[in-house]
Amino acid sequence: MPTVSKRGNMMPASPIRRLVPYAEAAKERGIKVYHLNIGQPDIKTPEVAIKAIHDANLKVVEYSHSAGFLSYRKKLAASYRAIGIDVDHTEILITTGGSEAFTFAFLCCFDPGDEIIIPEPFYANYNAFAAMAGLNVKTLSANIENGFALPPIEEFEKLIGPKTRGIVICNPNNPTGYLYSKDELEKLRDLVAKYDLFYFSDEVYREFCYDGKKHISAMLLKGIEKNVIMVDSVSKRYSECGVRIGALVTKNREVLENALKYGQSRLSPPTFGQIAAEASLETPQDYFDEVYKEYTARRNFLVEGLNKIPGVYCPMPQGSFYTVARLPVDDSDKFCQWILSEFEYKNQTVMMAPATGFYYTLSKGKNEVRIAYVLNRDDLANALEVLRKALEVYPGRTI
Amino acid sequence: MPTVSKRGNMMPASPIRRLVPYAEAAKERGIKVYHLNIGQPDIKTPEVAIKAIHDANLKVVEYSHSAGFLSYRKKLAASYRAIGIDVDHTEILITTGGSEAFTFAFLCCFDPGDEIIIPEPFYANYNAFAAMAGLNVKTLSANIENGFALPPIEEFEKLIGPKTRGIVICNPNNPTGYLYSKDELEKLRDLVAKYDLFYFSDEVYREFCYDGKKHISAMLLKGIEKNVIMVDSVSKRYSECGVRIGALVTKNREVLENALKYGQSRLSPPTFGQIAAEASLETPQDYFDEVYKEYTARRNFLVEGLNKIPGVYCPMPQGSFYTVARLPVDDSDKFCQWILSEFEYKNQTVMMAPATGFYYTLSKGKNEVRIAYVLNRDDLANALEVLRKALEVYPGRTI
Repeated sequence: MPTVSKRGNMMPASPIRRLVPYAEAAKERGIKVYHLNIGQPDIKTPEVAIKAIHDANLKVVEYSHSAGFLSYRKKLAASYRAIGIDVDHTEILITTGGSEAFTFAFLCCFDPGDEIIIPEPFYANYNAFAAMAGLNVKTLSANIENGFALPPIEEFEKLIGPKTRGIVICNPNNPTGYLYSKDELEKLRDLVAKYDLFYFSDEVYREFCYDGKKHISAMLLKGIEKNVIMVDSVSKRYSECGVRIGALVTKNREVLENALKYGQSRLSPPTFGQIAAEASLETPQDYFDEVYKEYTARRNFLVEGLNKIPGVYCPMPQGSFYTVARLPVDDSDKFCQWILSEFEYKNQTVMMAPATGFYYTLSKGKNEVRIAYVLNRDDLANALEVLRKALEVYPGRTI
Repeated sequence: MPTVSKRGNMMPASPIRRLVPYAEAAKERGIKVYHLNIGQPDIKTPEVAIKAIHDANLKVVEYSHSAGFLSYRKKLAASYRAIGIDVDHTEILITTGGSEAFTFAFLCCFDPGDEIIIPEPFYANYNAFAAMAGLNVKTLSANIENGFALPPIEEFEKLIGPKTRGIVICNPNNPTGYLYSKDELEKLRDLVAKYDLFYFSDEVYREFCYDGKKHISAMLLKGIEKNVIMVDSVSKRYSECGVRIGALVTKNREVLENALKYGQSRLSPPTFGQIAAEASLETPQDYFDEVYKEYTARRNFLVEGLNKIPGVYCPMPQGSFYTVARLPVDDSDKFCQWILSEFEYKNQTVMMAPATGFYYTLSKGKNEVRIAYVLNRDDLANALEVLRKALEVYPGRTI
């Protein structure tokens, strides 16, 4: 039997995956599991998207252009220009999800052994994309006490060595819900300019900003236009995660040109997904207004509810639909497993993502969990009640 | 401006892409271009697939399981068992096209610097997948004189060194249309067993076999069950290239387990594509009968027509829907460009793929082109006429 690759063995597994069998076993025991562990919203996909698929009626489901439908790229570029991002369709590569945009762009910007800096906690799959590209990740920790704001820029600068080639910032942030300020982004810009780094900006949660706060795209930062690679996706914006359509957007033509070669090697992004994504650009404003109202209400309800549970602390996130909460537990991996496998309250339990999976530093996040507020308020209320009751009896409770 | 990666610059571009601007310019001049250059069939997608999409009517287009719909994997496994391939759904990872199956499996089987052997001419994107995984390709040449049969197995063996970890065989073959015999496959099996190599078997053209010849899957070869990685795709089988659904199939659990980690990093294959692919398994037999009849007739018509053109030689391919023909030209790259940019006959011209793009050895394929018989016979007749007239006046004609 031939030996599998070292890199395949070293490939990090999804941090939540370990818990899936426990959740499945709970369901088999007849227990209702509230899924606060993943970014799969229950919000309806816009009707225009569903209708476009319904009406497509293709005779031959053909390959599209490797860079995506020209019509979609043009409309997408116009939609960026409408929010002040000055790009045209030649500066966009449509990808199979934001994931593929990362994979292609990492391959185009970095060589094996290059280093990238990502403040932690961060979206766990960045690790996977970095591993696929043979990159080394350096990290510095954001802190729950100040709501996971950008760590001091001097800390970034200290990490920069001869192999450092880029930074990755997710704004609004998954997992923390943090929305970066103009001041923070300008500090990042200055650093990127000083060391001529690539600046990967994951902006897939752009529309999810609360309390009147506005998202600032890295594409708007002056003087680093050729350094910025924006990664986008329709998954969360239109609650259509399954269509698998993202985009790599950059003013750096060399990156785009090479990324297209990777794009050609996989022929094209999904045709039906592009039909849905293109139609989604016509989503009426009241859809977003309703989604905004819904998520704001959920967030307020969840964060208030969490902070009322003795020993729990949760900052008020201002973006995305996640939050990281601190729990009075010895080990969030153990706790998240225990609540699925050894606890139930009124025949219900909760699945959360241990924050350890979002920290690169091994010792970090042991008393934190990521909670996605992708469920309706009734479910959130029940989930909060389960969590409160669970913490009352969890054997590894710390305070 | 930050420097892009070396590997991005080294990434091979699609061999046909260079010709695209010439084809577009011809169209702008009002010339009808017959596209014999790509594997995009004009055959209709099965109605069951189109209907499944039309009827899907999802409320929320959710992520699927990272390994693909469980229902689809189960039905797909049953369809393999129906043709004698003994697998169950846990031995299948649904991928975003066959391309992704190659990418994931290369990463799982090989480490950077490992060598793989692929007989040339071969599907050009294998180069791209190898480049993405940091692999070195070794090659040996098949020959048009014997219809591109497997080169002598001793030639393979000579190429095997300490870094050789795998072979890639496309059967039926793209670009040559060659269908490997039982004897050839058994020789490959013995070699694979002797050196404990991974055997990548690209079987996406499995149904396209002519003259009563039967395809033999590498999954049926005894004694190398853990060595074989089968790559499959619905693109050609159901003429639904745009759905982007493929599969990685193997009895090697370690490979599958690691491949799932890569699968999780990109979350899931496209939902609508899976709906179409799953429904396509219900395609009635008369669809395949008709497709078979159509392709057989096209092949016969094309190959006879080619061999009637003075100076042209084309073996009779017994699989897929491609053939490689030898033309009396100095340089197929020049000729394919010339016919698009400087020639027209009755306001028509032809786009073909220079075979140089399918050879790894730089000097090879200079008087060969790949022709896909993906057009109806009227179009093929016109294309043949254009080709005949073009060869009469091409300045670089050799014989």
